Amino acid sequence: MQVDGKHYRTIWVHPEDDSVIQIIDQRHLPHQFVIEDLTSVTGVALAIRDMHVRGAGLIGATAGYGMYLAALHDASDNNLKKASRELTQTRPTAVNLSWAVDRQLKAIAQADSTVDRIQVARQTAEDIANEDVDYCRSIGEYGLELIRKLAKEKGSGPLHILTHCNAGWLAFVDHGSATAPMYAAHDAGIDIHVWVDETRPRNQGARLTAWELGQHGVAHTVIPDNTGGHLMQHGLVDLVLTGTDRTTSSGDVVNKIGTYLKALAARDNDIPFYVALPSSTFDWKIKDALAEVPIEQRGADEVAMIQGLNEGQLKKVLITPPDSPLANYAFDVTPANLVTGLITERGICAANRESIGRLFPEYVINH
Amino acid sequence: MQVDGKHYRTIWVHPEDDSVIQIIDQRHLPHQFVIEDLTSVTGVALAIRDMHVRGAGLIGATAGYGMYLAALHDASDNNLKKASRELTQTRPTAVNLSWAVDRQLKAIAQADSTVDRIQVARQTAEDIANEDVDYCRSIGEYGLELIRKLAKEKGSGPLHILTHCNAGWLAFVDHGSATAPMYAAHDAGIDIHVWVDETRPRNQGARLTAWELGQHGVAHTVIPDNTGGHLMQHGLVDLVLTGTDRTTSSGDVVNKIGTYLKALAARDNDIPFYVALPSSTFDWKIKDALAEVPIEQRGADEVAMIQGLNEGQLKKVLITPPDSPLANYAFDVTPANLVTGLITERGICAANRESIGRLFPEYVINH
Repeated sequence: MQVDGKHYRTIWVHPEDDSVIQIIDQRHLPHQFVIEDLTSVTGVALAIRDMHVRGAGLIGATAGYGMYLAALHDASDNNLKKASRELTQTRPTAVNLSWAVDRQLKAIAQADSTVDRIQVARQTAEDIANEDVDYCRSIGEYGLELIRKLAKEKGSGPLHILTHCNAGWLAFVDHGSATAPMYAAHDAGIDIHVWVDETRPRNQGARLTAWELGQHGVAHTVIPDNTGGHLMQHGLVDLVLTGTDRTTSSGDVVNKIGTYLKALAARDNDIPFYVALPSSTFDWKIKDALAEVPIEQRGADEVAMIQGLNEGQLKKVLITPPDSPLANYAFDVTPANLVTGLITERGICAANRESIGRLFPEYVINH
Repeated sequence: MQVDGKHYRTIWVHPEDDSVIQIIDQRHLPHQFVIEDLTSVTGVALAIRDMHVRGAGLIGATAGYGMYLAALHDASDNNLKKASRELTQTRPTAVNLSWAVDRQLKAIAQADSTVDRIQVARQTAEDIANEDVDYCRSIGEYGLELIRKLAKEKGSGPLHILTHCNAGWLAFVDHGSATAPMYAAHDAGIDIHVWVDETRPRNQGARLTAWELGQHGVAHTVIPDNTGGHLMQHGLVDLVLTGTDRTTSSGDVVNKIGTYLKALAARDNDIPFYVALPSSTFDWKIKDALAEVPIEQRGADEVAMIQGLNEGQLKKVLITPPDSPLANYAFDVTPANLVTGLITERGICAANRESIGRLFPEYVINH
């Protein structure tokens, strides 16, 4: 992605000091572009927990680099195990987190000397990040064909795509999952317009997706999360396209709270509902997301207080009565029967075990 | 309703100066309780348009008092017609507005002298407000029986009611529509708990409904609008109960944007979805709400900027990138087939022409 014309990833090793990992502290976007240095596992865990970085792919990549920092400081089995626990406990719902940490533990276990372990950990972190970029690019290519087909069927006017939360460049290392097809379609000259759900309570849509799309020049409109159903009833949405934080091998999609409501409206109005994800976001072990996936509950402050720009400064304002209790469930489950299809790095498939198993036979057993 | 132990209506004639109408300027709630004086039709129109007052019943009552101020200053047909236009143009979706203004025009037309006209206009404004109070009280009584039945069926634990926006005391003259049954149930000792949708973009739930329920001592929790589907999937909602800004004689419900999404989730999870309204909120003339009701679009600033308390002062913060376009549709339509029933001042009926016609035969022709 370009930011003011310069190419960035969302995470990288400091070019002059390879004991420092650099990230974009996304809490300040869209108003401030802040780069943060991470030098310890604890710093990495804090950055994930407090959402300096967030999003399926980027959480995985950050955990990967976190394990590299762990090895750099103390490559013993004990310390690596401690670091892996510290990292995986930060966010319970996101599956990329444990996927990346497990991959690091397995890779590092193959190396004996401290020097080797550090080198392997760094290489594995880079591999995770590079694969994330490659997979998202590939998702973009498959999604582009879907958008091309829908635009052709529609004939005239822009193809209206509704998205929820940020499954963009900022949620991965580059390109994004749900946004990759949008960027590819825009670059291919297809006329698209994106409805961006603001995505309360943390406003990742209003703050991050809108900013990303704007930087890339993609036509978009920010809407309150309540709006999508009305737009669909009036023929103003041609495609719903979101990311996911965890998807089961049976096609149940865990994603940002509110996704399920949009999927219901899409079904009620015969609008295709697609979910874009790299294979690292599949949870191959569980079957029933509603029963088995832990739904993260975050602090009440995220609902009560909203941060934004006031007279040039970022300030937080209190919305609710000081005494009113609040609840903050971060994710919900969209059952597979509401999902038209999944866009992966290996192609598009239906949201069921058989179809997913045809694309990923090495993971889906007994399909 | 009691505010800090003192009884209030939401609108009244100044006790010492009957050329002044007093309202609660709801834009400052829950952080500040501000009473505003209205002395002209233009002031009343501004208070409605900029939402110092809002909500189906209160908009009607305010327009009624606005017509009284119009008559007070110039009771000529010309001026009354001008005032009626100024008032009805403020909010296009709310049907109570034109209902109250038409009622005033008809009543005033019966009187000849200026003195009579002023007196009739004042009496009619008071009648509209008093009826609103009576009808809401009655809605509360019918709704109480529904809640009692559902609580009995459930057996143990609180009955969880989800509501959207503010169809409370603050949206009417007293009691509220959707809240009237909640207050009645609470007062009758039934164990209820209310999930309060914050209701973006203007946060009427987070600011007003939460504050009202808190003042009355009703257990409640504020949630982002995205949350209801998840709660319903997990058995944490027993009843959805909202108000409406306009309901057709065929049972289509126009209400705050996002209501439709909650109705879809309620159907998907077999949860009863009820709408409370006085007869003044029925639009007896139209049949197909989706095709015929104008959906108000409000300013982009309501989405981009959020007001709240910061260091003891009300401040507005900017959420979105300054260049991103925004859309702000204020209402949506919940088709009758998603509505379990309507709670009116004459009883509860199904959301269809036949059933509504049995309660209101004088309005529903050919039922």
